[in-house]
Amino acid sequence: MVQTQHTTAEATQLQRARDGEVTEEMEYVADVEGIDPEHLREEVAEGRAVIPANVNHADLHPMTVGAGRVKVNANIGASATSSTPEDEVRKVERAVHWGADTVMDLSTGRDDLDSIRRHVIDNSPVPVGTVPIYQALEEAGGVEEMTGDILLEVIEKHARQGVDYVTIHAGVRQSHLQHTLDRTTGIVSRGGSILAEWMEKHDRENPLYERFDEVSEILRRYDVTYSLGDGLRPGCIDDACDAAQYAELDTLGELTRRAQADGVQVMVEGPGHVPLDRIEENVERQKEACDGAPFYTLGPLVTDVAPGYDHMTSMIGAAVIGWKGADMLCYVTPKEHLGLPDADDVKEGLIAYKIAAHSADVARGDEDAKRWDDELSKARFAFDWSKQFDLALDGDTARRYHDETLPGDNYKDAEFCSMCGPEFCSMRITQDQRSEAGEDELAFEHTYPDVEEVHVLEERRQRLLE
Amino acid sequence: MVQTQHTTAEATQLQRARDGEVTEEMEYVADVEGIDPEHLREEVAEGRAVIPANVNHADLHPMTVGAGRVKVNANIGASATSSTPEDEVRKVERAVHWGADTVMDLSTGRDDLDSIRRHVIDNSPVPVGTVPIYQALEEAGGVEEMTGDILLEVIEKHARQGVDYVTIHAGVRQSHLQHTLDRTTGIVSRGGSILAEWMEKHDRENPLYERFDEVSEILRRYDVTYSLGDGLRPGCIDDACDAAQYAELDTLGELTRRAQADGVQVMVEGPGHVPLDRIEENVERQKEACDGAPFYTLGPLVTDVAPGYDHMTSMIGAAVIGWKGADMLCYVTPKEHLGLPDADDVKEGLIAYKIAAHSADVARGDEDAKRWDDELSKARFAFDWSKQFDLALDGDTARRYHDETLPGDNYKDAEFCSMCGPEFCSMRITQDQRSEAGEDELAFEHTYPDVEEVHVLEERRQRLLE
Repeated sequence: MVQTQHTTAEATQLQRARDGEVTEEMEYVADVEGIDPEHLREEVAEGRAVIPANVNHADLHPMTVGAGRVKVNANIGASATSSTPEDEVRKVERAVHWGADTVMDLSTGRDDLDSIRRHVIDNSPVPVGTVPIYQALEEAGGVEEMTGDILLEVIEKHARQGVDYVTIHAGVRQSHLQHTLDRTTGIVSRGGSILAEWMEKHDRENPLYERFDEVSEILRRYDVTYSLGDGLRPGCIDDACDAAQYAELDTLGELTRRAQADGVQVMVEGPGHVPLDRIEENVERQKEACDGAPFYTLGPLVTDVAPGYDHMTSMIGAAVIGWKGADMLCYVTPKEHLGLPDADDVKEGLIAYKIAAHSADVARGDEDAKRWDDELSKARFAFDWSKQFDLALDGDTARRYHDETLPGDNYKDAEFCSMCGPEFCSMRITQDQRSEAGEDELAFEHTYPDVEEVHVLEERRQRLLE
Repeated sequence: MVQTQHTTAEATQLQRARDGEVTEEMEYVADVEGIDPEHLREEVAEGRAVIPANVNHADLHPMTVGAGRVKVNANIGASATSSTPEDEVRKVERAVHWGADTVMDLSTGRDDLDSIRRHVIDNSPVPVGTVPIYQALEEAGGVEEMTGDILLEVIEKHARQGVDYVTIHAGVRQSHLQHTLDRTTGIVSRGGSILAEWMEKHDRENPLYERFDEVSEILRRYDVTYSLGDGLRPGCIDDACDAAQYAELDTLGELTRRAQADGVQVMVEGPGHVPLDRIEENVERQKEACDGAPFYTLGPLVTDVAPGYDHMTSMIGAAVIGWKGADMLCYVTPKEHLGLPDADDVKEGLIAYKIAAHSADVARGDEDAKRWDDELSKARFAFDWSKQFDLALDGDTARRYHDETLPGDNYKDAEFCSMCGPEFCSMRITQDQRSEAGEDELAFEHTYPDVEEVHVLEERRQRLLE
């Protein structure tokens, strides 16, 4: 799937799906997900699934959002005060290693943005997303100086360069801003706050809304997928599900239909910060307003009281929103609200979100997903510690914790661990009992497949990515 | 509330509540929770709330499970291969510091169990729970040698010593065991597996079931609260909600009624490992089977694939089950399934579970709980970093993360952090915009109370515990 640089697309995956074509990318994705290619084609044609695959992203391994398992995105990117292009490449590698399905380069506030983006695209086998308005602001030299033309030029630059999906905050309309004035934390989307300031200063409508069809035309040419940004997403529990958020969501529904009518693939972004009892409502409203377009959410955090642990406060919300129907979960790292994440934070965020997405898959009845749980549980019951570590999401950490109290190979087939000690291991007792009852075979009859087969999706993907 | 050692109770909190008495303990607890003492009395009288307060636990600060906010328990305890009494005291201190509402001493497999328990009770201002069968097995010298008399003697010893609640696996009946034979991970409760082995070896009914009324008589004498153990709880996703689990739950309902009729307070324990989509069902069945008695759950883990991160896999389930009606959440540490937790693991587990319990409180509509979120969010929006750290669940960690990239006092009123840098901070932009629009006051008009007032429950509790 290597492409010449700077080519354009005859037709997008959406347009080809509508024409009845099962593309090479659909074949590939259906194989990875273990679903029927024709079914995937139909989902893409109906706008319920997207395959973000810019014709200029060389060596991309396509994936889908909206069909198959729940996906995870890792945000990376430099800020004015931190990081280098090399640091960002390291984050891409770390993110892909730990299972990121896509990465977003959110670099801001510096003059080497093109170079960082080039590094990220060249080193990412998974789709790359960006938020072009960050660079538009940089190039304009200030919010007041920004113009629709600059925005469109930057969007086209990203599209030509091979970005697979772009966050476009076209849903932040002038008439919505009044609803944000009495909010506890105002507008917390960077793109949303920039556009709000622009609209206030110029007393004009959002240029991304006004020139939305032109943006669509650019994206269509390279088959870049929209990620319609929720610029008015709530930034704290108190602002969740308010008038500003839902007014924008209705506009995003309108834009989804317009973009799809122009042949452009669309995902829709969601919050943010939502208490547990209102998460399901968010999915229902998005699916209703946007005709079932894929829902791509940031967390949500279910409480604001634990800065330093927001990968955890948000993984609760992410698991629940994934279970209820969200299609991709944008991770949050422990540094959220506090500083720029480094490569270690990328890993921490991804572990949390792979757990959330997998739990959602299990709750949604995905049998492949549950098989992973079952095989690990069988290895646990069989005291096959090595197999258990091989099957674990992060086997190195599990092994290290085990070895803190029972180090070395001696204990790798011990029928206990230091948690309960040899006399008090319930699994050992259960097995002794089954043995004495003449059921020796029962406890150990499990035949589990090779690790490669169990990690069916992950391993396959890793092999493909090598 | 200091008591002479080895006294007995005239009547339990349950009996006194039924007699219409608002006890000293009820007054205290109602004050801490900010609820009406008469309402609490009624909940205790109806068996929907308990106040685990052994008359022999000197310097106990009483609390309730089943009314007010969702509670968190921290398991501590030594195993045959690890820890000392001093290590355990350190874990108690760590647990109480990080907000444990109760602690359970689960020490097993050693000859200094009485001494460890003495240390734990003497050093714990919060209720202490134990599982007496662990020591009964030790004293009997083996499962086969264990007798009902030994069990009762050990239970009485714990009660005399000042233990506030005991896990009694009286619900594991002989007729239930057949349902565990084809399970993926058999019986994973240590108490449950010991009793199952005993029943198989003796071909007799569970002595704790047969002599349940005698156990109740002991507990009533010291006002020890039952924590009816779920010895057949599922040990993996595949075994969740199966015949064994629910057969035992029905027995626990029967035992709840018998114990309450004898004047003994009762909580009921719950799983364990449950996929997200079946958590609500677990609460509904328990509340139905046990007439609304407090539900005290272990996690549950919502996936088995992440050993080393089971504080996180289980905090998802804990938050959801708390939201749906569970009353106390037993934490899980990162060492679960791998080894004995140390003092650092106790902190990690508690942070995860304080987040889960607080998220549940917010989702249940607890306004005091939400006020904490709101005040932290206001501090965040006002760029009052110091206030934000003071209000954070773990302010030291939040401050450390912030200071990694922007150290020192210089940045403590900076209107940005390294995540977005000075130009791209959405909150700064929103505030500038509000200022320009002549709404200077809007962004900063928040008057937030002192930290002491916000952490209303926590701080009050900490002060009382000093």
